Amino acid sequence: MHHIDVRIEKDVYAANDRLAAENSAHLKEHGVRAFDLLGAIGSGKTSLIERMVPLLAGRGLAAGAIAGDVYGDDDFTRIAALGVPAVNANTGTECHLDAHLVEHAIDHLPLDKIDVLFIENVGNMVCPTDFALGAEKRVVVVSSTEGDDVVNKHPMMFRGCSIGVINKVDLAPLVGCNMDRMEADMRRYNPEMKIFRTNMKTGEGVEDVLDAILK
Amino acid sequence: MHHIDVRIEKDVYAANDRLAAENSAHLKEHGVRAFDLLGAIGSGKTSLIERMVPLLAGRGLAAGAIAGDVYGDDDFTRIAALGVPAVNANTGTECHLDAHLVEHAIDHLPLDKIDVLFIENVGNMVCPTDFALGAEKRVVVVSSTEGDDVVNKHPMMFRGCSIGVINKVDLAPLVGCNMDRMEADMRRYNPEMKIFRTNMKTGEGVEDVLDAILK
Repeated sequence: MHHIDVRIEKDVYAANDRLAAENSAHLKEHGVRAFDLLGAIGSGKTSLIERMVPLLAGRGLAAGAIAGDVYGDDDFTRIAALGVPAVNANTGTECHLDAHLVEHAIDHLPLDKIDVLFIENVGNMVCPTDFALGAEKRVVVVSSTEGDDVVNKHPMMFRGCSIGVINKVDLAPLVGCNMDRMEADMRRYNPEMKIFRTNMKTGEGVEDVLDAILK
Repeated sequence: MHHIDVRIEKDVYAANDRLAAENSAHLKEHGVRAFDLLGAIGSGKTSLIERMVPLLAGRGLAAGAIAGDVYGDDDFTRIAALGVPAVNANTGTECHLDAHLVEHAIDHLPLDKIDVLFIENVGNMVCPTDFALGAEKRVVVVSSTEGDDVVNKHPMMFRGCSIGVINKVDLAPLVGCNMDRMEADMRRYNPEMKIFRTNMKTGEGVEDVLDAILK
């Protein structure tokens, strides 16, 4: 029983990785650069997209988005309001996007009109890490209100992402969050990680995050 | 392939349910009432335990706890500092506790010295819902900083819990969170849900949550 489980699990990951490679090739053919945004519920992933889309427009780049959620269209509605092509990807009961869902979402996007595609994963610090989607980079967003032990608790997430965003810096003193601990934990798990502190309410730090994403 | 997947999935859930029933019987034999605390990372599950333990002591009831996390002992350390028997349950890569992990954790607890056992699940709004642990009730803790769409995004979580706690009420105005929407969404998914608003910094609302848990 256990043996069968493990074999199927490997098959699932292998199949996902194959599809992710196909997504990546398909996006490149159309000149689209895709970025996977990860993090817990409410960390600020949608807000980051809201802040980056106009900055991209200022640089002459057109954005698109896939909004991943278990249920509902709250994030999709916010992103669509920006006037960019967006697809709502509901997972139903699944705790993460996978390459197959993203493949279908991409089919509904006008790829030739998109330069930068943001794929907002389901709010979850654990499950999305195992499933590549075909994005060029993975960005993880945490917020001060999640507690300064949030990074330490999730080694795989920070090993799997190349950019780390610490959001809601304005609330850190109110919740007793030591952002230096978060940053030190990020560097311990991933010495190469590019780390930024942001406040999505004011836009503080977002331009630097976008630079790192596009670099 | 898909067919095999589904059958194994059913076996996993059935096996977990059997073990959960055994945990429940085992705890009852020792006069222990167990409660599963669920919610996202940083919602306030550990803080709720920190606030309830002394209240229980004031009522002549001894607490114990199982601290579930993917990795590390941050929550365990906080709970152990209260001087109550506690076990750290690291899932390694899994995104939720299961009845088997809880069975082992229970083995390390002095059950005859515990009246109320809090089982703090992994911070995750999706995965824990499918895995019963053997607890009498499930309590979900959300915080205003997760955004007022957090409930709508997670129907299964709120259908599966009987008590809903909206925490960090003091921060709601700062993050533009409409707690009435959260509460309305909870009632829509689960009309029977007992709903409370709390501030773990001051202890506001915690006594009422404890009353509902013990009722």
